[in-house]
Amino acid sequence: MQFVEKLIQLVKDKKSVVCMGLDPRLEQEGQIPRFLIEEMEEPDKIILEFNKQLIENTHDLIPVIKPQIAFYERYEALRALKETIKFAHKNDLLVILDSKRNDIGSTSEAYAYSMFKNFNSDACTVNAYLGIDGIKPFLSFKEKGIFILVKTSNPSSSEFQDLFSAKLDNISSGITEQKVSNLVLKRNYIHLAELIRDWSTNLQKFSGFTNLGAVVGATYPQELKSIREIINNSTILLPGYGAQGAQASDIKHGFFKKGLGAIVNSSRGIIYAYNKTKKYAPEKFGKASRDEILDMNKKINKEIGI
Amino acid sequence: MQFVEKLIQLVKDKKSVVCMGLDPRLEQEGQIPRFLIEEMEEPDKIILEFNKQLIENTHDLIPVIKPQIAFYERYEALRALKETIKFAHKNDLLVILDSKRNDIGSTSEAYAYSMFKNFNSDACTVNAYLGIDGIKPFLSFKEKGIFILVKTSNPSSSEFQDLFSAKLDNISSGITEQKVSNLVLKRNYIHLAELIRDWSTNLQKFSGFTNLGAVVGATYPQELKSIREIINNSTILLPGYGAQGAQASDIKHGFFKKGLGAIVNSSRGIIYAYNKTKKYAPEKFGKASRDEILDMNKKINKEIGI
Repeated sequence: MQFVEKLIQLVKDKKSVVCMGLDPRLEQEGQIPRFLIEEMEEPDKIILEFNKQLIENTHDLIPVIKPQIAFYERYEALRALKETIKFAHKNDLLVILDSKRNDIGSTSEAYAYSMFKNFNSDACTVNAYLGIDGIKPFLSFKEKGIFILVKTSNPSSSEFQDLFSAKLDNISSGITEQKVSNLVLKRNYIHLAELIRDWSTNLQKFSGFTNLGAVVGATYPQELKSIREIINNSTILLPGYGAQGAQASDIKHGFFKKGLGAIVNSSRGIIYAYNKTKKYAPEKFGKASRDEILDMNKKINKEIGI
Repeated sequence: MQFVEKLIQLVKDKKSVVCMGLDPRLEQEGQIPRFLIEEMEEPDKIILEFNKQLIENTHDLIPVIKPQIAFYERYEALRALKETIKFAHKNDLLVILDSKRNDIGSTSEAYAYSMFKNFNSDACTVNAYLGIDGIKPFLSFKEKGIFILVKTSNPSSSEFQDLFSAKLDNISSGITEQKVSNLVLKRNYIHLAELIRDWSTNLQKFSGFTNLGAVVGATYPQELKSIREIINNSTILLPGYGAQGAQASDIKHGFFKKGLGAIVNSSRGIIYAYNKTKKYAPEKFGKASRDEILDMNKKINKEIGI
């Protein structure tokens, strides 16, 4: 069964489009609770225990989780990542590995192998700055999904992604500056969305969706609307909900009817929810995450009409 | 001592601008020799032994190596990568970890920590599609270097990097398409080069260079010339020499006088040189690599006048 098929099934079954981001952090108060750190000592064990409790408390409420590999690399806890993915699968969850990998040819093949075979993730995020050469090796894993960065959730995403750009096929490659009149210009992220549309043309579709998705920050609702119109066959992963400031009303343009077409990620907002009020003891971080997801599901489902 | 200072010193001392790319591959004939694979069995051991012999045979001829982390992830051989870096440092070599990492805020911090602290690399490659938010955490490691992708060496780099783009500050962010007349357009890679120039303004300089470098494919000599004019204070990492088709004459526009301003990477062309002629037994792969580098140094130094 294909990634996108499974995702659609789980969204329907669980009536949720929420993705829980697993971004383990150990340094500061209010992140992974102290008692766990003192009890388990090794980062690999601490992080795995934290993730397991989160999954146990929430797996019936969500279709998918998204571990951010940077943190597992930071703490040299790749074993915890692998075990977390295994545990998530046992608990009827899909796994998007957030890795934003990018390279070409056999190097890109090596990354795809690492993400999909070594870690056994169901999908991963990819950066397409290098063009289709870097994307093809990921697409050759037919049953897996990828999410290409289009418009990211951070403030400085505008610096490059928002430039107005155009294709000018008749100009020889050596020319770097041109004064041009009467030209149709579109923002860079729109061009990237159009590339995704083009690359999707010959891919297999399930309920209208291919395994080739896109990442669009929920912090940019207008941009989301424009992008949604271009990539009809792609699932959009929406980061930026919660801690980064996006609300339920910001994400509705990502969806088609029946709650299909997008998933909404929250990381810190869910996994460190215990720390937002005095209601929860640190030991109850799993319960706090569950309550946070219940609240997200309610607010989001109201907006998207499921 | 800063990365760029050390690099300049080693380039002068060794009279070489060659970077040896360590891209270990195990599947096919003509890559890591069979006898090593059969002797050592485990990927971690095979790769470390291969890299050590390469370094032993070449360290006096080159200033820097560039391991491609994708392959170490592919074979789950991160221990070999760590040990290779340690061994390179003992042998008076700098290490650029080719990882093309990209993310924002604390995630980007985690990646920088992994590259610079866990692996103890001297520099790494970074993808700047997300803007300065993703670059700052790397720059906060003051003594380390980064190389930002500008124009990559692969054929499909044109799809996105070669679009003509423009800043249009007066247009509100909601507008995605505009007909504009009399507008100065520059290719996307030129805009990225200008961002690097801007981000470099307040960085410390050594012999005119900052720790903030750029990656430009040696396969695109005209583009290299245009980019070189914009980023005067950046070292350019030039991949694409050898196996990807670039020649010594293609790289000269990357350099200022005295061989400063760029380094030329070759991976497969050097490390699998034993396989190019019948001159070398597989056991002599180190000697073949040494001969290949001697040839590269000679050809390149003639072009750049050192």
